[in-house]
Amino acid sequence: MIGAAPTMSDSEVHGTVAHGFEAVRDEFAAVAQDAQLAVHLHGRRVVDLWTGDVAGDSLTGVYSSTKGATALVVAVLVQDGVLELDLPVAHYWPRFAAAGKGRITLRDVLTHRSGLIGGLSADELADDRETARRLADRRPYWRPGTAYGYGGFVTFAIVGEVVRLATGRSLQEHYEERIRAPYGLDLYLGLPEALEERYLDVLPGSASPAELTAFLATLPSPYSIVGMGYGFGLDQVAFLNTRRVRALGQASAGGVGNARGLAAMYAAATFGPLLGPETLGEFTTLHSTGRDLVTGTGQYALGFQAKGLRYPFLGADAFGHNGSAGSEAFADPLSGIAFGYVRRRFSVDWSYPEHDRLVAAVHRAAVGAVDDNGKVYP
Amino acid sequence: MIGAAPTMSDSEVHGTVAHGFEAVRDEFAAVAQDAQLAVHLHGRRVVDLWTGDVAGDSLTGVYSSTKGATALVVAVLVQDGVLELDLPVAHYWPRFAAAGKGRITLRDVLTHRSGLIGGLSADELADDRETARRLADRRPYWRPGTAYGYGGFVTFAIVGEVVRLATGRSLQEHYEERIRAPYGLDLYLGLPEALEERYLDVLPGSASPAELTAFLATLPSPYSIVGMGYGFGLDQVAFLNTRRVRALGQASAGGVGNARGLAAMYAAATFGPLLGPETLGEFTTLHSTGRDLVTGTGQYALGFQAKGLRYPFLGADAFGHNGSAGSEAFADPLSGIAFGYVRRRFSVDWSYPEHDRLVAAVHRAAVGAVDDNGKVYP
Amino acid sequence: MIGAAPTMSDSEVHGTVAHGFEAVRDEFAAVAQDAQLAVHLHGRRVVDLWTGDVAGDSLTGVYSSTKGATALVVAVLVQDGVLELDLPVAHYWPRFAAAGKGRITLRDVLTHRSGLIGGLSADELADDRETARRLADRRPYWRPGTAYGYGGFVTFAIVGEVVRLATGRSLQEHYEERIRAPYGLDLYLGLPEALEERYLDVLPGSASPAELTAFLATLPSPYSIVGMGYGFGLDQVAFLNTRRVRALGQASAGGVGNARGLAAMYAAATFGPLLGPETLGEFTTLHSTGRDLVTGTGQYALGFQAKGLRYPFLGADAFGHNGSAGSEAFADPLSGIAFGYVRRRFSVDWSYPEHDRLVAAVHRAAVGAVDDNGKVYP
Repeated sequence: MIGAAPTMSDSEVHGTVAHGFEAVRDEFAAVAQDAQLAVHLHGRRVVDLWTGDVAGDSLTGVYSSTKGATALVVAVLVQDGVLELDLPVAHYWPRFAAAGKGRITLRDVLTHRSGLIGGLSADELADDRETARRLADRRPYWRPGTAYGYGGFVTFAIVGEVVRLATGRSLQEHYEERIRAPYGLDLYLGLPEALEERYLDVLPGSASPAELTAFLATLPSPYSIVGMGYGFGLDQVAFLNTRRVRALGQASAGGVGNARGLAAMYAAATFGPLLGPETLGEFTTLHSTGRDLVTGTGQYALGFQAKGLRYPFLGADAFGHNGSAGSEAFADPLSGIAFGYVRRRFSVDWSYPEHDRLVAAVHRAAVGAVDDNGKVYP
Repeated sequence: MIGAAPTMSDSEVHGTVAHGFEAVRDEFAAVAQDAQLAVHLHGRRVVDLWTGDVAGDSLTGVYSSTKGATALVVAVLVQDGVLELDLPVAHYWPRFAAAGKGRITLRDVLTHRSGLIGGLSADELADDRETARRLADRRPYWRPGTAYGYGGFVTFAIVGEVVRLATGRSLQEHYEERIRAPYGLDLYLGLPEALEERYLDVLPGSASPAELTAFLATLPSPYSIVGMGYGFGLDQVAFLNTRRVRALGQASAGGVGNARGLAAMYAAATFGPLLGPETLGEFTTLHSTGRDLVTGTGQYALGFQAKGLRYPFLGADAFGHNGSAGSEAFADPLSGIAFGYVRRRFSVDWSYPEHDRLVAAVHRAAVGAVDDNGKVYP
Repeated sequence: MIGAAPTMSDSEVHGTVAHGFEAVRDEFAAVAQDAQLAVHLHGRRVVDLWTGDVAGDSLTGVYSSTKGATALVVAVLVQDGVLELDLPVAHYWPRFAAAGKGRITLRDVLTHRSGLIGGLSADELADDRETARRLADRRPYWRPGTAYGYGGFVTFAIVGEVVRLATGRSLQEHYEERIRAPYGLDLYLGLPEALEERYLDVLPGSASPAELTAFLATLPSPYSIVGMGYGFGLDQVAFLNTRRVRALGQASAGGVGNARGLAAMYAAATFGPLLGPETLGEFTTLHSTGRDLVTGTGQYALGFQAKGLRYPFLGADAFGHNGSAGSEAFADPLSGIAFGYVRRRFSVDWSYPEHDRLVAAVHRAAVGAVDDNGKVYP
């Protein structure tokens, strides 16, 4: 990681941990800055911490952790029988069939296989409908079926257009009604004006000009596959610090929330009544593994990232999604963990080594906190 | 390799080598401990060596080298027209269609593409029928068609169930009748009680407690994709040291034999009348290459490992299978080699660098032992 | 790179560069030996340089850069509706269906997915029809659909046979009539006797015997997948220095030309009237990415190499083809570059690090040479 020295934080840590999770507090104090951490264990919140220039209920940009919320909407609509994963996108949205895209399915889009990855401006990306309109006629960058690659800012706009055409309502409305409101989640696809007072601006990574220049020189062109998939052409800090982006809550990276919201959402998804075992099984099955043309190492379940491949001490069906400003969120059905971590400050090179330490500490504590009968210690 | 210093063996080497294979004896003396090596060249045995606490006719666990015998049974049955590789497993075994597995073919299973990789106990794994029963209803860990991954202890139980349902007899019975007995092979899927006196217990890797602890800390969870595929949850040493396992001879890793048996089997498969050129061509064709979700670098022909990718000085169609206790076995049709190597002692980290040295020495000798008319020196 | 010290060239640089491309001349002087470089920007030639034992209009072997010319012929015939990419090869050439190849399409062949990669002698490879005859009955080395691997000397012989059967004329004749003659390209598939006086022999890499021996010891067998795909069994230097090879101009690696010819061809392909945007889009779309069983890192569009993956500062749809003696050629539609580089001397290990420096220098100059209205500086 460039420009964020892994020194001990000098800020106080606030909040609470359940018995058995004291070591998580220590690890958080060691590695976190201007960040929040919340963890549920089998549905009960056992960690609720924050440090630096955030409060426990502060809201900030969660970027691609938004995709976890969006994927959950799709899972609910598939479970309802409203969406069919293996129908072509063009079944719902005929114009999408242009330029060789006639057989691309909703499942393909959800697993970054569509070949549409980016190349739009921040203004266009703010609004999923505008993004969808512009992508409809484009040729995929790879022949469908031969590869996959992360489309960081555009993938779920295509999904959103399918949802809108199939149901007459936006993905964002479904999220609010079916997921956010019922569970009282502090995680918004479209931040209400009234909550703006709790929003804290995302901060840029701190690096010397020389560090920054050296790093930028290593990057592929914004017009390369890698550059379009990651959105190198965008000012990502400015993106969610723009009210219009927060208000529209685009489905790929436009979400605003906090650690509590992310952890509670994954607890509801996994240990609550939201999804049946068939649906959960389908969405946690690995779909895109091997080389990701954009990220190199991306690994995906259905809509979600495959966290069992990211953190090999977790179970095979752990699932979630991180975000470029440093958020991380997932559920591990095997150990009962639902995890949410949010930070305000980008790292310059989008690497966040504290994720490994925090997730490992939480996992160790969670395994130790369950007795031989599977009962969580009080 | 951890815990097995690559020093010169202090044990005497027994057995014989043909003229031209003296250097193989030297290499074996330098790198082998409690091990056997047998090699055929164009059907004639040219190496028969052993050292340490084994005899030339001792039997021990060959673990996944068993899969070579099993794959050969399948090849024979496909050649007979009894099995069809591209039919769904569910065609033979309807219950297997559960949980999205309806289109998985026998070929998919043989090439580690089914998505069923493990997660069973040693008791369940001892018996292929029990393994098959438990796998039938399971959801694959990856969407069929998107990936492959080595299922070390379970793959051939699925194949066995297909054989049983298609023919009314077990894969083990077919092996005994069609392959083992006719060629007098010292390689058993189901070790007869009468031969138990020749069985030598498999031995654990020798490592200090500190070495072992350090190594184990690097391993993924037994419940991860990697952990299930390799069987990290099992005591592998105890597995084949259990009489019930040896008696049942499960088709993935339950075989008992010696180097002579392995070499003679590959000689029969390649240079004998067992398989016609069409069948041999089909089973030596590469099927699963690229990233293996379990082993990272696994590369498979049909049922067999692709040894031409493992040892690039061999021909493109070399095929065989190694085993976790350190066995290695293959045929290289181009050079005329059939190779069998068995050791009693696991290495702690399942790495066996002596394989490269032994195979290279055998290949050099074999190439030198053939004159310009393709005739083997006497 | 072995045996070609990256020292300053002591030969004079000849030729011209347009205003703004002076730095390209400096870079060429620093890294090129016995080589030519030509660049067009939006159709206008802006670089024309040569150094060492070549003249600006010398001709030599371009090896696999030939594939760029061949792929362009296919693109024109597909655009004409004469060839259909997704028909099986066997539709045009029934005998090709042998040994499990019935469903392999023309698109598969063009993207190195056929599983036929080599294993022929230089005499057989000189003549595409002889190559095609010998490949027709062969079994693919991998199961079609499971992998891809570069077939350096044979791939386009299969394409050529399809062209001949579909049109009654050879691929080479189509190239001459539709592409070479109309644009006056110094790039020949079949070098006329009258032009032999401009041909300069390809030279072997310069390495000490010890360097050469050490390098060769690292290579896979000529009978391995890698060895067949690259043609390790061939004397590549002798190949194009043979008049019969030059006269027949086999479509995979038998082309003769110079840097001017290559650059002008890519300018015509991209910025001329030869291909419409639909055809150009189809042929620049990524088709084979991920692990190449022969080269490890090969990445292909349709027939062409994907140069946007090779040089990440270029646009995503850059396309072209290099050759084993050190030629490099491509177009980058985004920046307007058409690039041709030819050298007479192989490097011992087929690596040419000067490519990166030359392409980067040209790209920097090209971007700087275009004003804000997209107009090239005079």
